[in-house]
Amino acid sequence: MIETGKGAEATRSALLDVLTRSPAKRRPMWFMRQAGRYLPEYRSVREQAGSFLDLCYNPELAAEVTVQPLRRYDLDAAILFADILVVPHAMGLPLKFAEGEGPVLGTVRSMEDLDRLRPVVGTLEVTQVCRTVALTRGRLSAHLALIGFCGAPWTVASYMVGGGSSDRVMAKVAAYQRQEWFCALIDRLVKESIDYLSAQADAGAQAVQIFDSWAGDLVGTELEDFVIKPLAAIVAGVKARHPTLPVIVFARGVGMAQRRVAAIAGVNAIGVETEFALADLPENIVVQGNLDPIALLAGQDVVAAEVRRICSSVDRQRHIFNLGHGIRLGTDPAVVGAVVEAVRRCDG
Amino acid sequence: MIETGKGAEATRSALLDVLTRSPAKRRPMWFMRQAGRYLPEYRSVREQAGSFLDLCYNPELAAEVTVQPLRRYDLDAAILFADILVVPHAMGLPLKFAEGEGPVLGTVRSMEDLDRLRPVVGTLEVTQVCRTVALTRGRLSAHLALIGFCGAPWTVASYMVGGGSSDRVMAKVAAYQRQEWFCALIDRLVKESIDYLSAQADAGAQAVQIFDSWAGDLVGTELEDFVIKPLAAIVAGVKARHPTLPVIVFARGVGMAQRRVAAIAGVNAIGVETEFALADLPENIVVQGNLDPIALLAGQDVVAAEVRRICSSVDRQRHIFNLGHGIRLGTDPAVVGAVVEAVRRCDG
Repeated sequence: MIETGKGAEATRSALLDVLTRSPAKRRPMWFMRQAGRYLPEYRSVREQAGSFLDLCYNPELAAEVTVQPLRRYDLDAAILFADILVVPHAMGLPLKFAEGEGPVLGTVRSMEDLDRLRPVVGTLEVTQVCRTVALTRGRLSAHLALIGFCGAPWTVASYMVGGGSSDRVMAKVAAYQRQEWFCALIDRLVKESIDYLSAQADAGAQAVQIFDSWAGDLVGTELEDFVIKPLAAIVAGVKARHPTLPVIVFARGVGMAQRRVAAIAGVNAIGVETEFALADLPENIVVQGNLDPIALLAGQDVVAAEVRRICSSVDRQRHIFNLGHGIRLGTDPAVVGAVVEAVRRCDG
Repeated sequence: MIETGKGAEATRSALLDVLTRSPAKRRPMWFMRQAGRYLPEYRSVREQAGSFLDLCYNPELAAEVTVQPLRRYDLDAAILFADILVVPHAMGLPLKFAEGEGPVLGTVRSMEDLDRLRPVVGTLEVTQVCRTVALTRGRLSAHLALIGFCGAPWTVASYMVGGGSSDRVMAKVAAYQRQEWFCALIDRLVKESIDYLSAQADAGAQAVQIFDSWAGDLVGTELEDFVIKPLAAIVAGVKARHPTLPVIVFARGVGMAQRRVAAIAGVNAIGVETEFALADLPENIVVQGNLDPIALLAGQDVVAAEVRRICSSVDRQRHIFNLGHGIRLGTDPAVVGAVVEAVRRCDG
């Protein structure tokens, strides 16, 4: 059982309180990619597991790395250790993570490719991930929330079209051309994402985050049709089955269009990578972010100043402290600790 | 003398009219990287010239490629053919463009490195670029504006710190740590940029654009100190010498902070890569953008629809039609022509 820091006396989760706009005892905090290679204890488990994917699909070890950061740091939530490419992998596309390189994923570029894909529910991949969720939930005390997640359709589709590459040119061209197979792929990912997030909630996830890392690629009607509408459909679908499950949407790089994300019915919080203005957002919306992970490479004095700036700029009852991206490889775990302490100090 | 299309009967430049908020006869239009490898006539001149840098420093040939797009398309402006790394090169850093790869630039990572750099005014590099400006201006009829440009301090500094790499981690760490040499480098680039843009204006540039391609890297006080303030200092310095010279600032990826860019005294227009809302900007500010260059890879029907969307969303008296980034290699010149025709058709 993980019972860290000052939060341990509480029985309610500050993260869930803020997400539901209930008075929270403190500013909730977690970090994207908080479980990962910058931690020596992660690297040790990873060695046992074998490949990155072996670790994702090993519930015992995946649960262990999910809770590792909470042993070190006084955080308010664990995020499931998995990958956004679990969904296309579970759908039947071959997937490999070459060491030191990006993923290599089978491609979908036609209706025939799409027709070969299977539903994720009941696959070994999704079953194992849900086992990780259940195991992890059992290891966290009540004040620590467990966050599930998936990739958003646009982002996941762009990897499926590009074969795992982060180059989204081919996906963007298909989107602009409104290729029938591409639109059908987005619809299909909406459905699978609803099922996948629902399965995680059934297994014990208490909030979910949808990662649309490449949302900033699109504008105008393409943003509307391939980012906003699919996100809205997922949120509606998940909420239909889990009405009280808080949903965080991280649509990276959309700039002023964050307002459109925040206006999606049912969204509880938006993730913000860089600047944001609460004044621009509906009252019910919580913001999550936005310490630059590169600031963590610049040392403890730098992060202390950045934390003060962020905490003083946003009401702690509407804020989830987080990074703007994932923690970078090479980050000193002591600096992560300094961030946590600085946030706690700011809120006194 | 280049006298293209419908604009040729005019003696005033629609671009300069819009930039100075005077009634313009039509929506001005130009494209970032409009002179370049997608054009066969460019490739032919480039072969004569030798390397990319040889072409940049050959006024006769650089002027020729600067005007080439205006022979093909009914545009309102030419943009000087040069590179943002001309400034560090003129300051004395070695620079090479390896074919098919990025630039390789000497590094600045200490006060000693900085002390070795020389002023750009009077260097062969800047002299040749200004000759290109003068030659080009002489080849354009009155209704066609010539735009000069430089890179912004943050963007240019990030290449100088990173040795030409587009990885800005080292520069960001130096910025966060407020390294003395880094702050001095930014100040130095402000001064050199003012001199460089002024020299271009003296040679015949009628408007200038400052490219801050990596502005979106920074937030908060770092955005203020390394993006906004240096941009403001350049604009003030240039306007002190050339009070009527319109200045366009393209601070890519800053999202909602475009409002801070638009609030810089003396800025006439902001370049916008993706979404923008005129309602958020001061009345005197013109927006420039924002057709996605990848839409041009998706064919004529796609661009026609995108052009309609953009033109109907922004008042043509406050808009300069452009792309959100540079034209991509592999773009069909006929599709660029279709964009131009679609813009003219929209404004009837």
